[in-house]
Amino acid sequence: MKAGFDHKKYKPFAPIEMPNRAWPNRSITQAPNWCSVDLRDGNQALPNPMNVEQKTRMFKLLLELGFKEIEVGFPSASQADFDFVRVLIEENMIPDDVTIQVLTQAREDLISRSYESLVGVKQAIVHVYNSTSFVQREQVFRRDKQGITDIALNGASLVKSYAEKYPETQWSFQYSPESFSQTELDYAVDVCSQVIDVWQKDNKDQRVIINLPATVESAMPNVFADQIEWFCNNIPQRDSIEISLHTHNDRGCGIAAAEMGILAGADRIEGTLLGNGERTGNMDIVTMAMNLYSQGIDPELDLSNMAEIVECVEYCTQLPVHPRHAWAGELVYTAFSGSHQDAIRKSIDFHNENGREHWNVAYLPIDPRDIGREYEEVVRINSQSGKGGVALVLERDFGITLPKWMHGELSVLVQAHVDKSGEEITPAKIHEIFQSNFIQVSDLWTLRDYSIKTKEDYVELEFNIGQSPAFKGAGKGAFEAMVDAVKRRSSMNIRVLHFDEFALTEGTRSDAIAAVAIEVEDKIYSACAIDEDITKAGLQALLSAMDSAVKLEQLAKAV
Amino acid sequence: MKAGFDHKKYKPFAPIEMPNRAWPNRSITQAPNWCSVDLRDGNQALPNPMNVEQKTRMFKLLLELGFKEIEVGFPSASQADFDFVRVLIEENMIPDDVTIQVLTQAREDLISRSYESLVGVKQAIVHVYNSTSFVQREQVFRRDKQGITDIALNGASLVKSYAEKYPETQWSFQYSPESFSQTELDYAVDVCSQVIDVWQKDNKDQRVIINLPATVESAMPNVFADQIEWFCNNIPQRDSIEISLHTHNDRGCGIAAAEMGILAGADRIEGTLLGNGERTGNMDIVTMAMNLYSQGIDPELDLSNMAEIVECVEYCTQLPVHPRHAWAGELVYTAFSGSHQDAIRKSIDFHNENGREHWNVAYLPIDPRDIGREYEEVVRINSQSGKGGVALVLERDFGITLPKWMHGELSVLVQAHVDKSGEEITPAKIHEIFQSNFIQVSDLWTLRDYSIKTKEDYVELEFNIGQSPAFKGAGKGAFEAMVDAVKRRSSMNIRVLHFDEFALTEGTRSDAIAAVAIEVEDKIYSACAIDEDITKAGLQALLSAMDSAVKLEQLAKAV
Repeated sequence: MKAGFDHKKYKPFAPIEMPNRAWPNRSITQAPNWCSVDLRDGNQALPNPMNVEQKTRMFKLLLELGFKEIEVGFPSASQADFDFVRVLIEENMIPDDVTIQVLTQAREDLISRSYESLVGVKQAIVHVYNSTSFVQREQVFRRDKQGITDIALNGASLVKSYAEKYPETQWSFQYSPESFSQTELDYAVDVCSQVIDVWQKDNKDQRVIINLPATVESAMPNVFADQIEWFCNNIPQRDSIEISLHTHNDRGCGIAAAEMGILAGADRIEGTLLGNGERTGNMDIVTMAMNLYSQGIDPELDLSNMAEIVECVEYCTQLPVHPRHAWAGELVYTAFSGSHQDAIRKSIDFHNENGREHWNVAYLPIDPRDIGREYEEVVRINSQSGKGGVALVLERDFGITLPKWMHGELSVLVQAHVDKSGEEITPAKIHEIFQSNFIQVSDLWTLRDYSIKTKEDYVELEFNIGQSPAFKGAGKGAFEAMVDAVKRRSSMNIRVLHFDEFALTEGTRSDAIAAVAIEVEDKIYSACAIDEDITKAGLQALLSAMDSAVKLEQLAKAV
Repeated sequence: MKAGFDHKKYKPFAPIEMPNRAWPNRSITQAPNWCSVDLRDGNQALPNPMNVEQKTRMFKLLLELGFKEIEVGFPSASQADFDFVRVLIEENMIPDDVTIQVLTQAREDLISRSYESLVGVKQAIVHVYNSTSFVQREQVFRRDKQGITDIALNGASLVKSYAEKYPETQWSFQYSPESFSQTELDYAVDVCSQVIDVWQKDNKDQRVIINLPATVESAMPNVFADQIEWFCNNIPQRDSIEISLHTHNDRGCGIAAAEMGILAGADRIEGTLLGNGERTGNMDIVTMAMNLYSQGIDPELDLSNMAEIVECVEYCTQLPVHPRHAWAGELVYTAFSGSHQDAIRKSIDFHNENGREHWNVAYLPIDPRDIGREYEEVVRINSQSGKGGVALVLERDFGITLPKWMHGELSVLVQAHVDKSGEEITPAKIHEIFQSNFIQVSDLWTLRDYSIKTKEDYVELEFNIGQSPAFKGAGKGAFEAMVDAVKRRSSMNIRVLHFDEFALTEGTRSDAIAAVAIEVEDKIYSACAIDEDITKAGLQALLSAMDSAVKLEQLAKAV
């Protein structure tokens, strides 16, 4: 054991005294108000923050899923966020029933800039925060409680007075005592209560959200629920405000904390799709919503196309969704154990025979078809039609690794076969589909021989395919030379989009697989080739892709 | 929304009536008894189950971390598991203070076979289970409660009588009412109580573990805690047994459920390292143990070398550990947000100035150094020295994608630089280290030109490097031909271990990067090359790897 590994450096979290704790007696009976913070907290936590195209795609997905409140950025801290807010407003991308939210620190220059970003919006939530925990007061801000309260109250006043400058917008105000879960409860109530007074003093109907973040998850979720119940019981203006929660996942319990916080009295949940966010991530709204769904509660989000959600999140965050991620992961409706497979089959048969009103199947908390997954995936990995599943079968049973960009294409073909046959698909059949669609090539496009010569900074390629006379081309590399050679003979305008090559097994005497995607007249064609000669594999894959293009083109003409 | 997405298909989980619930008033004050099920439940859930070498490596890691109870397999269901148990026993791999555990269904042939696998072991836990939930009774086993109880009691008797045949071993017995969390509580108590009676009737000191699985997580963790408290309060033999929990993660709350189950009275936790297991996985012992650690409680596991744990788990399961995985993920001690970075810096400075007894730093629940992580990682991704971090910088800032097998090698070099300089490392410096170690090549090994001709089923390669006369070789492919050509000139015995090539950007006019690893006299050398010509990139990478081999060989001779 290393010298540094010593638990005695840490203090236990002090429990909350709760003589009449009510939350463990309650159940959740309806969905909370959801607020997505994917475009703010999620985005801020990315090694590569989203570009405008990614942000737009995420925003559209959030609308599609049914989010009514979306924190879209921190416009005073980031020009990119400012510009994105302007795009949303100026291009009328915000539906009438959706409210955007922006985050700002409690400083005048930042608050002023935040309002500038929002000019012309129909309605918006201005979310102001400052840190209130002991550590932040002592070590970061080096102010006492009154000093920290002053920051909050100054921010609240500025938020209010700037709002009055833009009366055409319907403003809601949100305050977060950041690091709430590490703040003394009575002090948190005191600060929040004073902020609420500033905002509602002259206007009892002013909408106010008090957002209570577990900025760092630092106690068990039942302790967090105690904190929320205590806060709800002690904040004097409970009836005129909404209580929002914003949990993180440092102890792996962000979802449990949010759910129990709802039992404890909160109304609203901030989180992200599949849990992206600082460090261990924000609480995952998809999981919490699916948890409600599986208990017969309307999640008030449309999660029926889980594959689209996963794909968009992976694209926008450039982070993977884990294969075991609750509800969404690639492996979560799969049973590898024989006894589980057997029980699932019997249980599904029983359901089909008996037409039960409610779903109650062994090992399957929901019917995977609800969210666009299939039974095939559930019980037999060999017949899995999921993207990675098919790739997994090829890799496991045939040692063929495919680049990720090819998984989807193959999966569509396998799915089409399964849909048509209605039967289980075997690994051999998957392999056959792969072979016939990506590997097999007509004689016309089969590489017979080739030679390459390098000249200064380019190469000359000569090769023979089918019955043609030898092709000759030149370019910076063999691919470019081959495209050049084909161009000299035909009118095909070819662009190489992807190229990957892997050794299939170790050692020089082994095969390499090359995978190529080309674009011809706005259509994309992919092909693979396997050869002991890495150069030949690459060149043949390129030719095979051209073969597909021609075959399909001819097909198109024939129709 | 798809027609199938309808929450009304599902029933809410019925809450437990608990008028005098005690668990929310308690705190965890010591670690539970841990039992790793990585080699059984974890292994059964893998697309590619572990081989003997992977199992052995996992077993050794579990010992190193300090596990005293390890479920090593399901020997009656799997010959591979049977053989592995024999290896452990016959090769004396089980320390005297460690108890292995095997799982079996409650059937005579399987119980008999399980004991056969254990012949000669000093002590062992025989873990027998059958399913008890309503769904399993009705739909899978199609038996009433008494029928299911009979299966359990028959199993218990057999376990006991077979144990008597092997008196040289000290036996413990474990029973799981599988799908406990979906079983009526009074029935679960009834079955377990009868099983305990079978085992302890003649011998009050017989060690009995009752393991209560949330085989499928189907309610909130506070409900699971209620179930455990109810069970503990109502099982008549509470004082003579150990209560074990085995939670899964279907609602993303497996850790919370286990922690609250401990509050509710359980003694022991079954789980896996980083949460591998069926579907969404088992509960993650690393996270729960680190949660305890961060509260000043001795986790009774040595988790000081987190990198080793992550590496071993990824190697043995062939599944990734997510970058945001609590305590262990690559990004969890990193702050991307400027205000977080600033607060962390101020807070760490404060700690250094004031020499506080207990750790209390903003945004950092523990000191990352405790588990072998570094401050550099915390605040600046640019200077991250983690494996993926370095690769991330190369990819983000220079568009260079490296195959995963190369990350570790580069990381070691970057780390060495950081350790020596003691300073922040810039992306440019990382790039320079990559260039000088993997790309730069002496004139002697620089490919000037090459030509390839195909003959029947092999290729002839001719090429010029440095000042040498042209090299000539032949082989199944260009790589083999190049190795052949070098062999004709020198005594180097070269084996190609890895080869990967990727297009760096889209289009034919772009660069490809090739990465090659070779083995020369039991040492491994890697190199990369970038070129617009994919063939040249591959050949140059192979030559550059040879260059490293020679340089390092000379170095070795010089010493």
